[in-house]
Amino acid sequence: MIHEKTAKKMSLHVGDRVSIKDHKGKIISVVDTVSGIIQPSEIAVSGDILEKLSLKDKASVEVELAGHPRSISLIKKKLKGERLSESEIREIIFDIAENALTEVEVAFFISAVYANDMTLEETKHLISAMVDSGNKMKLAGMVVDKHCIGGIAGNRTTPILVSICAAAGLIMPKTSSRAITSAAGTADVIETVAKVEFSISEIKNIVKKTNACLVWGGALGLAPVDDKIIKIERLVNIDSTPQLLASILSKKISVGSHYVLIDIPCGRSAKVSKNQAEKLKQKFLKLGNLFGLKIRVVLTDGTEPIGNGIGPILEIKDVIKILQRNNGPMDLEKKSVMLAGELLELTGKSKKGKGIEDAQKILDSGKAFEKFVQIIKAQEGHLDGFEKPMFSYEVKSKKNARIKHIDNKIINKIARFAGCPEDAAAGIYLYKKKGEIIEKNQVLFTIFAVSEEKLKQAKGLYNKLGKKAVEFSRV
Amino acid sequence: MIHEKTAKKMSLHVGDRVSIKDHKGKIISVVDTVSGIIQPSEIAVSGDILEKLSLKDKASVEVELAGHPRSISLIKKKLKGERLSESEIREIIFDIAENALTEVEVAFFISAVYANDMTLEETKHLISAMVDSGNKMKLAGMVVDKHCIGGIAGNRTTPILVSICAAAGLIMPKTSSRAITSAAGTADVIETVAKVEFSISEIKNIVKKTNACLVWGGALGLAPVDDKIIKIERLVNIDSTPQLLASILSKKISVGSHYVLIDIPCGRSAKVSKNQAEKLKQKFLKLGNLFGLKIRVVLTDGTEPIGNGIGPILEIKDVIKILQRNNGPMDLEKKSVMLAGELLELTGKSKKGKGIEDAQKILDSGKAFEKFVQIIKAQEGHLDGFEKPMFSYEVKSKKNARIKHIDNKIINKIARFAGCPEDAAAGIYLYKKKGEIIEKNQVLFTIFAVSEEKLKQAKGLYNKLGKKAVEFSRV
Repeated sequence: MIHEKTAKKMSLHVGDRVSIKDHKGKIISVVDTVSGIIQPSEIAVSGDILEKLSLKDKASVEVELAGHPRSISLIKKKLKGERLSESEIREIIFDIAENALTEVEVAFFISAVYANDMTLEETKHLISAMVDSGNKMKLAGMVVDKHCIGGIAGNRTTPILVSICAAAGLIMPKTSSRAITSAAGTADVIETVAKVEFSISEIKNIVKKTNACLVWGGALGLAPVDDKIIKIERLVNIDSTPQLLASILSKKISVGSHYVLIDIPCGRSAKVSKNQAEKLKQKFLKLGNLFGLKIRVVLTDGTEPIGNGIGPILEIKDVIKILQRNNGPMDLEKKSVMLAGELLELTGKSKKGKGIEDAQKILDSGKAFEKFVQIIKAQEGHLDGFEKPMFSYEVKSKKNARIKHIDNKIINKIARFAGCPEDAAAGIYLYKKKGEIIEKNQVLFTIFAVSEEKLKQAKGLYNKLGKKAVEFSRV
Repeated sequence: MIHEKTAKKMSLHVGDRVSIKDHKGKIISVVDTVSGIIQPSEIAVSGDILEKLSLKDKASVEVELAGHPRSISLIKKKLKGERLSESEIREIIFDIAENALTEVEVAFFISAVYANDMTLEETKHLISAMVDSGNKMKLAGMVVDKHCIGGIAGNRTTPILVSICAAAGLIMPKTSSRAITSAAGTADVIETVAKVEFSISEIKNIVKKTNACLVWGGALGLAPVDDKIIKIERLVNIDSTPQLLASILSKKISVGSHYVLIDIPCGRSAKVSKNQAEKLKQKFLKLGNLFGLKIRVVLTDGTEPIGNGIGPILEIKDVIKILQRNNGPMDLEKKSVMLAGELLELTGKSKKGKGIEDAQKILDSGKAFEKFVQIIKAQEGHLDGFEKPMFSYEVKSKKNARIKHIDNKIINKIARFAGCPEDAAAGIYLYKKKGEIIEKNQVLFTIFAVSEEKLKQAKGLYNKLGKKAVEFSRV
């Protein structure tokens, strides 16, 4: 925001594009005018800009009219359904990286890709551009990585399998994103027990000490455009295939992984059907090979939530129970061990067919938990004491019945209305899962929130969609 | 912007959707946090919000977490390429009208319609929803209206033909929009000589006095969603067919027109080709009939700029010259008279085949100029004295040649880089047009700007695209 008088003097108008520059860097923003709260010699910027430029109060900046980036016409080209060349994609991605495009313009790019899709060739260029517009990491040893396309409520396998693999000697500098459409991402979950924002050199130290890390990818400048896009996609809960492929593979390449395991949960109420998952798998394999990765893709059952807790703190509690061998949810344990087994086999650490067995041994021996504690400590965290949500609502069964299906999308949505992922203690705790029997008046699940208003909204959504959230069959 | 402490207390996070309410109304916005420039009990809002709620300094407002409107999932549905029902379209449009969606979310809706198009049925619902979410106007007499789909540099026919038709006794409450992709809209042009923002009752008085008006449609609350959409479309210079149809017809219906003339300039460097224009014509006729309008659509030559001036002040000067019978540009005069003639025939004021002749007589008699002065005076304006642009650059011919083609899109783009339409004195003055002969070193056109920086950007664009802007052939 610029003072009206200054705007007039500079012949700037509301909506004009300006650059704000200091010695640290440059950001492009759109002018709004104001009078009263600031002086003509001052500007006011949002916390977002403050952070991006690391500005202090009373700092001096240079403000000037910014040119119209050519990438705007390239975005329009893609909106029209035309293909973009390598250099055109690079221009858009580098402009996003340099903040030369506003959020509304990035939204147009995101929709263009969502509505018109991208060829494999375009997706390849998107990945390269994302990698090249950011930092890269190099580590010694067998660097492995794993990614799940998400969409399944709960399903916090990453901390478990990272602990198993790191205990087995693999190097796993795991960077995760925050939630896009679900109740929590791995970064949101780990943040409840440790710091997740580190510099690249700090991460190298953590990995050197422990073989692994569990950090947020966004703070590292690894394919930073991906995080900017995800932030805007979240507003309308969309996630296009090319963007999904690029998001995952650009991070894996930037982080220097040689071995990559992709988990695609599919089926009813998952992000993708079995058929779509199969197509996605082929794209991952082709793109992975183009970039010289040793890649394996597994299709897993994505019909139901996995684990009991849904929401950052509720999920980390499930993870700790499993690692401590303390009655954690079996479905989450089984899946985590299976994925760890795949990685052990892909890298040759385990013999073919022996991966799962080896992974289970490491978990049962307590070595995985030991490794997890090491990683959390290295990330300046600890495992004692969690914030308690202040408001809760118990959903009880109206009859004796068997649970036939719990819908991921609706459960995620209720958890988001309750405040996930920003409110760490918010979410849902499932007492019963598919196939289990529930009695009349027994608690099916509890919704937690940190504000009454958010609990009200989550309850409101449950009251509207409840019948679709959980289906029952006769006992 | 909310103080960090307050945000924490309310458990609001950056990016959360909140409603800001006062006794005048409600607006939805997205939270950013700040500390320092405001107190915990204060919020800071942009000039935009200030204006929408008519807030004064130190005013009290109520801020609370806003729900997630269902229209977000409907926007996603359209992005996927699915059809929207009448009630779904109404929900999106009413949410936009009530500011329940952010600009980024509206951008997703705009792209969804742009990328996936709408059926005639969907477009009809879009028009109804836009009309019903705004005010309506009712006037006695033969209410006529005219609209040009735009895209042609110069081409300021409206003030001329409105003056002719009003002089002939037709009722023409002309509301115009501001420029979307061109250098100036009629509202931008009239604003250089008169006020263009009036209330509906003020407009009724102006029309009662003079038979007509030349005002900006945006301030009237007639199909207000259209203006919100146009504001966002401008950022990437797009304009989808359904939105174009809805934008035009919703305004005409809201304003109470019975007779509507649509001008579709087509051909090389116009918005649409002859073939596209023909398709658009059919859609206009079908939709017009569905809403009970007497509608006529003319396809005009849109290959070249019309008139000499391009930019708000430069264009009004051309208009005044023609109305004063003082050596105005002939191409602009001829087209304006033809369009006025069509309206005279459509309403039965002229006999079939006699419209153009009658219109020319009214113009030549000075009655049209008299009417124009009446309208401008009724809109609190006058015709003396214009702001002068401070910076200019003359583009000279490098050879003796005949002008073969002047490109509308590039000329518009250069004018926009020079500051149009916000800087009223900025723009381009064409000394030569298609078919004319130019000598070496003779001035082809002049670029005007009010800041050195903007002139530099316009020059930069001309230096890059100049060869495509004007084509020559041998003499």
